[in-house]
Amino acid sequence: MILHLSTWTEIEAHLARSRVIVIPIGSNEQHGPTGLLGTDWLCAEIIAHRAEVGSIDMLVGPTFNVGMAQHHLGFPGTISLRPSTMILALRDWISSLAAHGFETIYFLNGHGGNIPTIEAAFSEVFAEASFRGCRSGLDLILRNWWQLAGVDALARQQFPVGHGSHADPSEISITQAAYPQSIKSAPCHPPIAPSGAVRDAVDFRDIHPDGRMGSDPLQASPDFGERLIGVAAQALSNEIAALNAAQARPGANS
Amino acid sequence: MILHLSTWTEIEAHLARSRVIVIPIGSNEQHGPTGLLGTDWLCAEIIAHRAEVGSIDMLVGPTFNVGMAQHHLGFPGTISLRPSTMILALRDWISSLAAHGFETIYFLNGHGGNIPTIEAAFSEVFAEASFRGCRSGLDLILRNWWQLAGVDALARQQFPVGHGSHADPSEISITQAAYPQSIKSAPCHPPIAPSGAVRDAVDFRDIHPDGRMGSDPLQASPDFGERLIGVAAQALSNEIAALNAAQARPGANS
Amino acid sequence: MILHLSTWTEIEAHLARSRVIVIPIGSNEQHGPTGLLGTDWLCAEIIAHRAEVGSIDMLVGPTFNVGMAQHHLGFPGTISLRPSTMILALRDWISSLAAHGFETIYFLNGHGGNIPTIEAAFSEVFAEASFRGCRSGLDLILRNWWQLAGVDALARQQFPVGHGSHADPSEISITQAAYPQSIKSAPCHPPIAPSGAVRDAVDFRDIHPDGRMGSDPLQASPDFGERLIGVAAQALSNEIAALNAAQARPGANS
Amino acid sequence: MILHLSTWTEIEAHLARSRVIVIPIGSNEQHGPTGLLGTDWLCAEIIAHRAEVGSIDMLVGPTFNVGMAQHHLGFPGTISLRPSTMILALRDWISSLAAHGFETIYFLNGHGGNIPTIEAAFSEVFAEASFRGCRSGLDLILRNWWQLAGVDALARQQFPVGHGSHADPSEISITQAAYPQSIKSAPCHPPIAPSGAVRDAVDFRDIHPDGRMGSDPLQASPDFGERLIGVAAQALSNEIAALNAAQARPGANS
Amino acid sequence: MILHLSTWTEIEAHLARSRVIVIPIGSNEQHGPTGLLGTDWLCAEIIAHRAEVGSIDMLVGPTFNVGMAQHHLGFPGTISLRPSTMILALRDWISSLAAHGFETIYFLNGHGGNIPTIEAAFSEVFAEASFRGCRSGLDLILRNWWQLAGVDALARQQFPVGHGSHADPSEISITQAAYPQSIKSAPCHPPIAPSGAVRDAVDFRDIHPDGRMGSDPLQASPDFGERLIGVAAQALSNEIAALNAAQARPGANS
Amino acid sequence: MILHLSTWTEIEAHLARSRVIVIPIGSNEQHGPTGLLGTDWLCAEIIAHRAEVGSIDMLVGPTFNVGMAQHHLGFPGTISLRPSTMILALRDWISSLAAHGFETIYFLNGHGGNIPTIEAAFSEVFAEASFRGCRSGLDLILRNWWQLAGVDALARQQFPVGHGSHADPSEISITQAAYPQSIKSAPCHPPIAPSGAVRDAVDFRDIHPDGRMGSDPLQASPDFGERLIGVAAQALSNEIAALNAAQARPGANS
Ligand code: NI
Ligand code: NI
Ligand code: NI
Ligand code: NI
Ligand code: NI
Ligand code: NI
Repeated sequence: MILHLSTWTEIEAHLARSRVIVIPIGSNEQHGPTGLLGTDWLCAEIIAHRAEVGSIDMLVGPTFNVGMAQHHLGFPGTISLRPSTMILALRDWISSLAAHGFETIYFLNGHGGNIPTIEAAFSEVFAEASFRGCRSGLDLILRNWWQLAGVDALARQQFPVGHGSHADPSEISITQAAYPQSIKSAPCHPPIAPSGAVRDAVDFRDIHPDGRMGSDPLQASPDFGERLIGVAAQALSNEIAALNAAQARPGANS
Repeated sequence: MILHLSTWTEIEAHLARSRVIVIPIGSNEQHGPTGLLGTDWLCAEIIAHRAEVGSIDMLVGPTFNVGMAQHHLGFPGTISLRPSTMILALRDWISSLAAHGFETIYFLNGHGGNIPTIEAAFSEVFAEASFRGCRSGLDLILRNWWQLAGVDALARQQFPVGHGSHADPSEISITQAAYPQSIKSAPCHPPIAPSGAVRDAVDFRDIHPDGRMGSDPLQASPDFGERLIGVAAQALSNEIAALNAAQARPGANS
Repeated sequence: MILHLSTWTEIEAHLARSRVIVIPIGSNEQHGPTGLLGTDWLCAEIIAHRAEVGSIDMLVGPTFNVGMAQHHLGFPGTISLRPSTMILALRDWISSLAAHGFETIYFLNGHGGNIPTIEAAFSEVFAEASFRGCRSGLDLILRNWWQLAGVDALARQQFPVGHGSHADPSEISITQAAYPQSIKSAPCHPPIAPSGAVRDAVDFRDIHPDGRMGSDPLQASPDFGERLIGVAAQALSNEIAALNAAQARPGANS
Repeated sequence: MILHLSTWTEIEAHLARSRVIVIPIGSNEQHGPTGLLGTDWLCAEIIAHRAEVGSIDMLVGPTFNVGMAQHHLGFPGTISLRPSTMILALRDWISSLAAHGFETIYFLNGHGGNIPTIEAAFSEVFAEASFRGCRSGLDLILRNWWQLAGVDALARQQFPVGHGSHADPSEISITQAAYPQSIKSAPCHPPIAPSGAVRDAVDFRDIHPDGRMGSDPLQASPDFGERLIGVAAQALSNEIAALNAAQARPGANS
Repeated sequence: MILHLSTWTEIEAHLARSRVIVIPIGSNEQHGPTGLLGTDWLCAEIIAHRAEVGSIDMLVGPTFNVGMAQHHLGFPGTISLRPSTMILALRDWISSLAAHGFETIYFLNGHGGNIPTIEAAFSEVFAEASFRGCRSGLDLILRNWWQLAGVDALARQQFPVGHGSHADPSEISITQAAYPQSIKSAPCHPPIAPSGAVRDAVDFRDIHPDGRMGSDPLQASPDFGERLIGVAAQALSNEIAALNAAQARPGANS
Repeated sequence: MILHLSTWTEIEAHLARSRVIVIPIGSNEQHGPTGLLGTDWLCAEIIAHRAEVGSIDMLVGPTFNVGMAQHHLGFPGTISLRPSTMILALRDWISSLAAHGFETIYFLNGHGGNIPTIEAAFSEVFAEASFRGCRSGLDLILRNWWQLAGVDALARQQFPVGHGSHADPSEISITQAAYPQSIKSAPCHPPIAPSGAVRDAVDFRDIHPDGRMGSDPLQASPDFGERLIGVAAQALSNEIAALNAAQARPGANS
């Protein structure tokens, strides 16, 4: 079930069966000469929505589409939250869902740069309960899609050389599969981009002049993407089913 | 052009022609027994994306999909930001776009409850410049889709009675046109919902037990929606063309 | 009763009869060549204090005298809060009054530029209750004095041409009636000032070089002001009496 | 000159002669059985406005009327800002005045409980400059009216016993002189109130059941008040004249 | 007992006997040509740790070592928090200790510039309880080490001339006694430094070019320091014993 | 050189040779039945101070001793910052050091739970520069002491079984070596503690009843600690020397 394509009465009924929700989360940031600005949030959304089809009691919320991308602000089209802003926004999303009775909020993440801020946001939410000595009643899960079962092995097989860590052929393949009308071509020199540290945006562009980090994105293809989506969606579906089953066991969250 | 389906080099090229961008903005909140939780952000997104097709140099950014909906938190599925959080998030979105050279940021809004917070956010951004005595260089525009030329007249003609102010047949028709697989049916008693003040969420649900405010959403249809989308998209396209033309005039923003 | 001219025991006694309070709120900002910097907060204060005389159980609190006026910072004497600051300050005022048992906090506003921020502040206060799923117990009312019954009609009759929207003859007449020793005269060219958009302070002064927006303030007179005060004060008195009566009805706020 | 009874052009002219401004600041809080809730801000305002009459180039801004009074929230009518809110509000007031060219902002304070927060606010403003290694260009002065030359000696002479530290006969005398129609009478038992620590509001009311701290306010009289106002106003006038003279010396603020 | 050299079970046991804790607090800031950057926090820590030896049930927590020192940022090595940051950090320290059942949190302070911010932080903590109308259950104490019984008299006797108010011979003597390997020598011209106002860091360095304020620190010696530590530690030990005794009395904190 | 045992003139001289500084950072939190509450910040401090002895131009600042430990608040003695507070505090520390010309700020971290918040703080600092399109000029490094060259291999050899992830024998050995008078003994049942997820503090104590996570701390000894300190300090010294050398190369930070 897609939350934003449902009514509140449908969500009320869902909550009687499952208190788990998946929130795709990513970033809107440059992805090199051929990658889409939406790559990170699109990948999380594509995989979550694919998994939802055919899953039982898997609920997917709206996509948190702008994340922490300050280092990419030197490239037009990047939109970033400050970490402090993102912590507050995540706190409000989580508080809203918790108010309805959701107990497991599973963030399917598409952007490595979001990880520290998401984890800090979780701690911020838990700290409110901890300072008061009461239970939050929440299980907050951060899962990067590339760490879902089978995904990394497939990507290594598909792209044994030049995968890199940003604007990489895996993520670009996924968007090519889902948005075939938006496949871009452009030369990339050198074929495999340089790697380097991440500091501020001016410094980042000095080190990574076309935005790529260690990657050769020209290897991407819709076919590769389709297979990655399939493996990731299946693994996600399995994880949510397991969470639903755990919640349904006697004594869970008692 | 859709920003998140473009590369940074495409946005760089766009900026040489136009420094205008459209950001659809809405809310993820209950919309009565038959309205989708995503109605408000979906409507803004649907209209903006329709307008983009066939327009010249109209750039649409990602959708700001969770807004200020505290009064709807009594209904499952609603997600809300606090006004203070939303001001910070909008400040970061605007600052990101301004850093790339965008000068006119046009928020196409789908949620009445967002209006004060968006306007406060604009003032927050302008205040930074004003306290320093320097120019912001920004034109920040808030436009509600139902105020685009021709839309209100059409809606009054379509729904002379029972339009109401929330979960209304206009917005639901628009989502029915765009998401025909997600058309919902449910009884609504009374046919036209009560109206009332907006305070906190518990109070709101007391006054508006099924979430509707003064509306009879069962009048909605995909056909009505299609016509509303057409009129709104054309008006939006005209407005953006006018903004681009104004910017292109000699002396603009000099 | 004027709160700041009362003792805490008098307020305690008042609360046994009425849980309504009026807070005049405005802005300290330039009002053109002849308008006082305090115009907006003085008008709200003048009307509230006039209404208090002769009313039964009308309690008026201290005036919130500095509001959101960032766009006027290009003119000496303007003092402005950022919207984010004003939201926090209003939250603290409201929380203080709510802690004493006030249930209806009625802000009589004298500055259009305050409206979004005051409304956002109300939502910020309500959101605290809404996220917790509990009632706030509060009715927060924003009323602009120029929208009190009879005021607009009188102003249109007094100033059929050149009323404008800032530094206008209505508000200046009111301060002239109340502060006759501070009536100012200065030439205004052109007689009716230009109108235009509101962005940052430098931009504002470009468009509105003497601070007026669409107004011809030289039409102001103490007599006009006296009549405006009388009509506004009577309407305010009626509104507060109605709120007191509603609160006194069996079942109110039960 | 009273800022809020002046036009922006008058303030512009004033700035050519003096970059000094006085801001009365106080608190709106209980002052025992006979003291007005506005005592602290009224006293500062009364003295500043009295001093302004007859002074040359003394400019008085609007009164900052609600301060830090959390410990008095157990008594109806008290309104308090949190320290964190007050710091932001003072920062915005100071930033506004600094933007116009004021260099010396002199806060005439009427509430002891404000002192730490005002000083912290000054440091907050200075820190912005200090972290950047640039000058603030500001002289921020906090002066309590009871420390103006001659005031303490007079008060000790007037009230050799039972002056106390809150709801004291000095401050109540001042408001009696200025607001003779609002003189209150009520029994006070014991005649001299107990003193004690200041912690939270519930604790405060336990220790100070009628709100007084160590004082016998029934000694207050309008005559005592008139003499205190006279001495304080003269001392204030002298201090501002000295600040103006210092600023006018060659090399000042060079 | 030193908290950070204890286990949680030892602290649990301590809480059964005493709910008092001492937190040394200071600043890391320049202290003239011969003073250590850590002087302020080292002095508080040295005295507290000395007092702990031989005291019964005196618990000393970790040292809050970076405080509010914005005015010293013009000298290398100074580290400062903004007042607003320090308020939040103190709130979190206090909230943590309160969550464990500590009722008396005694800050032994070594830096005058911290005083307003610490007091504002106390009010910030108390305000949370006061707005809710509930007890905080906390006694928050700020004690500057130079105000402990006997310390000032001894310092006046040791340094009758040139004590000054920053980088003074008392505090430098204390660090010389505790860190004899870090005794510094450097010329100081003039022997007694100038005094002056405290504003921003650039202004501060103009007025106090080598960082001293009114002091002649070359009078410092380890022997003087040893005697100051002894007197201060004894007085602190007495104060904590008295607090423990008061807490143990029947009816305390009932 | 230890910053807090140095004068500002010594730091000024250091900056002419090296713009690198080491800040030990940790947490004050429960470490099981035998671990000290200060373990995490003490370990970082011990290693940094040991490395400083004998190194050339290695500067160590004061220890950031209270970090993000919300999940340990169920155990007496733990003190925690919220992530949002810690971000602000780190921003102020970094801004202070940057104002003096430090370019490389190397945080030697002793607490895994700090990692996301420290990284978010770095991004917060960089974002300020990135939104303005200017360079921060900063290299911010986070290094956990257990990842210094050779440390992990040694710990695995020392504790092949039962090392665990909190209150582990490595860190406890280090504090035993440095604080032999504070070696604690207590039974631990079961010998190897359970592992589990980290959520709020109540939940944490349910899962980890004595505070340990997967560890058998009774294996700790001062001898093991001494060897760990030696290896870690040497590796740290080497890293700082390399950073100094890199900075000294022609063209560095040009
Ligand atoms: Ni990516
Ligand atoms: Ni809607
Ligand atoms: Ni006005
Ligand atoms: Ni008072
Ligand atoms: Ni000192
Ligand atoms: Ni540890």
